[in-house]
Amino acid sequence: MILLVDMDNTIADFEGRFIDVWQERYPDIPHIPREERKHFYQTKDYPSEHNQKIISVITSPGFFCDLKPVPGAIEALHRMKALGHDVFLCTSSFFNYPQCVSCKYQWVSSHLGQRWQSKVIITADKTLVKGDFLIDDRPELKGNFKPSWEYILYDQPYNRQTTQWRRLTWNNWEKVLLNGHGHLDG
Amino acid sequence: MILLVDMDNTIADFEGRFIDVWQERYPDIPHIPREERKHFYQTKDYPSEHNQKIISVITSPGFFCDLKPVPGAIEALHRMKALGHDVFLCTSSFFNYPQCVSCKYQWVSSHLGQRWQSKVIITADKTLVKGDFLIDDRPELKGNFKPSWEYILYDQPYNRQTTQWRRLTWNNWEKVLLNGHGHLDG
Repeated sequence: MILLVDMDNTIADFEGRFIDVWQERYPDIPHIPREERKHFYQTKDYPSEHNQKIISVITSPGFFCDLKPVPGAIEALHRMKALGHDVFLCTSSFFNYPQCVSCKYQWVSSHLGQRWQSKVIITADKTLVKGDFLIDDRPELKGNFKPSWEYILYDQPYNRQTTQWRRLTWNNWEKVLLNGHGHLDG
Repeated sequence: MILLVDMDNTIADFEGRFIDVWQERYPDIPHIPREERKHFYQTKDYPSEHNQKIISVITSPGFFCDLKPVPGAIEALHRMKALGHDVFLCTSSFFNYPQCVSCKYQWVSSHLGQRWQSKVIITADKTLVKGDFLIDDRPELKGNFKPSWEYILYDQPYNRQTTQWRRLTWNNWEKVLLNGHGHLDG
């Protein structure tokens, strides 16, 4: 099978790094705790007066290079590969912040190994990429074409109102992908 | 239609920049003129003693930012879009040279406009990307999956021995894409 896996907040802990940098920069402005986040974009959860601060945090030097892996993600990716699947990291980028895309390659090289860099696909429209599954944290499926994959939500507090798709975490992914799709080693 | 278009030596003049930097750096070592190139990779056309020099040219700061457009390419891309097609720039990257990928976004923003950045797809395997045509200068179709697109060679001296696919330039692209595929405004 072809497994497409998103990066930010699916395998790379964007949220954790955001909170860390926010607390360093704005110690007097309380951050929204991880479990209380309601929207995909931080700018929709924080009062709008903080929009520029949010952007300045996300575009701070090395922000995307320094994300920690989501617990269990690295092991899950290696396991998918070991089971014989074609695994691709399918991610979009903040286009007006050129360092973001370079960081993504560096991150993959550091946490998964240099050869995984060739498995990165950067695209604003994931519906153009062929696959059996796309695992992603974004509550709404974004894209202009009919996807070939089943959309699977990577469970996050801000996507829990969405019931349209199956969801998984790195604790139960193997069971979820297997359900209704035969044996994973297909 | 979905039109996928490669970047290096298809819309961005990698070859011309390579020759310019080579002549600046190695004025005493003759470069291979554009029309005498026989292989896709420079390293296969130059004596192997020059391999490191070739890599140092390609990885010089800003190399991919400074490519000139291939004549006619920018007009062709705008025309494709104006005809109502979905145009994507489908390109791979030199993974161990992080600046390459940032430069590609900068290049697109400078030469096509900021909004075209969302049309860039970076992937080592283009057979995963859905499309009607892929226009590319690489003599061999590279990738592990069955493509949905027809491969169309962008004519370059080093791919002229290949007769397997139709070929075009930015002078005749509209006629070639139309041939055997009905009206381009399809």
